[in-house]
Amino acid sequence: MEIKGFLSKKKDIVDKELERLVPPAKTFPAPVHEAMRYSLFAGGKRVRPILAIAAAEAFGVKTADLLPIAGSLELIHTYSLIHDDLPAMDDDDFRRGRPTCHKAYGEAIAILAGDGLLTMAFEVLSDPRRLKSISSNRMLAIIREISTASGAFGMVGGQVVDIESEGKEIDLPTLEYIHTHKTGALIRASVRVGAIYAKAGPRQMASMTRYGEMVGLAFQIADDILDITGKQEELGKDVGSDLEKGKKTYPSFFGLEESRRRAREVADQAITALKDFDRKADPLRELATYIINRGH
Amino acid sequence: MEIKGFLSKKKDIVDKELERLVPPAKTFPAPVHEAMRYSLFAGGKRVRPILAIAAAEAFGVKTADLLPIAGSLELIHTYSLIHDDLPAMDDDDFRRGRPTCHKAYGEAIAILAGDGLLTMAFEVLSDPRRLKSISSNRMLAIIREISTASGAFGMVGGQVVDIESEGKEIDLPTLEYIHTHKTGALIRASVRVGAIYAKAGPRQMASMTRYGEMVGLAFQIADDILDITGKQEELGKDVGSDLEKGKKTYPSFFGLEESRRRAREVADQAITALKDFDRKADPLRELATYIINRGH
Repeated sequence: MEIKGFLSKKKDIVDKELERLVPPAKTFPAPVHEAMRYSLFAGGKRVRPILAIAAAEAFGVKTADLLPIAGSLELIHTYSLIHDDLPAMDDDDFRRGRPTCHKAYGEAIAILAGDGLLTMAFEVLSDPRRLKSISSNRMLAIIREISTASGAFGMVGGQVVDIESEGKEIDLPTLEYIHTHKTGALIRASVRVGAIYAKAGPRQMASMTRYGEMVGLAFQIADDILDITGKQEELGKDVGSDLEKGKKTYPSFFGLEESRRRAREVADQAITALKDFDRKADPLRELATYIINRGH
Repeated sequence: MEIKGFLSKKKDIVDKELERLVPPAKTFPAPVHEAMRYSLFAGGKRVRPILAIAAAEAFGVKTADLLPIAGSLELIHTYSLIHDDLPAMDDDDFRRGRPTCHKAYGEAIAILAGDGLLTMAFEVLSDPRRLKSISSNRMLAIIREISTASGAFGMVGGQVVDIESEGKEIDLPTLEYIHTHKTGALIRASVRVGAIYAKAGPRQMASMTRYGEMVGLAFQIADDILDITGKQEELGKDVGSDLEKGKKTYPSFFGLEESRRRAREVADQAITALKDFDRKADPLRELATYIINRGH
């Protein structure tokens, strides 16, 4: 499958960029840089950076130009995983088959590694040495896009509602709020910053936004399905851990088959949103399909 | 004393700006906005915003223009207090005479309120509706200044070394690293962003940087002294709490009298750094003296 080669190539490029962005593990003060790297290089698929790159490439922008921005999305994603795993939050001991950050480095360093990664994203996004081929106006728009998607009306808000819902019977709108905010907001922003970088016009921006929203939703439905059906090796976390915590997921509302049908439908809507784009948007189209089929 | 009127007037203006920046407590998702406000409006003196405003005013810039930037400094300062107080960090139950954020709202919401405040600072700093009278170039420089001062080579780094030093015998360079990073970096940045806003030239910027560094150091020495001599009512936290934890402070290296002498000396150096500025810099000069005399 061609998309696999695309993903593996882009993942390597993003990993090399992250290697450049984050100081060596032994940099003083050592434990925090080591912890940042521990979580950052734990085998993530780099979905958000790749979405940003693929969106920009749909307009003909070269990968290299977008790399610091793409990297900053992964810094923020990683911070959110570290904080979500904390004992006071989801209290997870393992992620991708390895001890979580606080299990490896203690809670204090894990909190600070998360704080440091979030802050570093904005250091990168405002670094004039890293961002030469884009106007300050557009960089500010990108910072605005990423910070809004990450804050209390985005990712943080989704995690708040998720935490507050633990052990409660939630309704479908609440589940959808959690989905669209906890993971959806940053995925949507990833696609949009690629388009902002590429100077997308209003109609193109609307298409990319729609694509980002649908891909984010498909991603989350697929994740809920995988949580039930996935093998431990594939996910690297306890299978059914959401179910054990009594968490409502997509399949608990619709069942597995209907959830699969909806994931397919939403992925198709993502592809339809790109109907005015030429073949340069093919990786985005294939990504939508890949996202709902991964792990099977 | 004239400076007290100045401080109280500016504090009111900053408080009104913070009121505008942060959504109402009942805004969905409610607990996180309530927790943010609980810690943000807990009686802080707004030292960092006032330093930024006073630095800009030394160049003739009006307070109103700088307010969103000044407010963002307080959002970041407040996030750092919330996270520092967490059980895994300094484990403090009270701050300014009230239960700390995690005591009032639980650890999960406190972590998320901190994350939300840090992120909100960058939402504010990239909001085109709030920042009309400054070029995008300079706004990026201000974001760079604030993020670098807050990250792993700034405030987060200082907290890492502070945490790692708990219960250990530390030397003076380590204490000074903690001081210059945990509190000094953001205070220095506060002064500098005022100067960046005002289009300071290189020599003026060097003077303001020196002022910011000396004021930050004076602030921390005074804080260490207050921790020993202050009455509980004045500080609102347990007197001698640093001593109880076996923490080394400035007075434990130099004694109280020598520490007082050094605080005075450093404050004088801050004032000397401003020798080329006219009377518009008087509030900055008086602030340096005020900082080492507060609480007595």
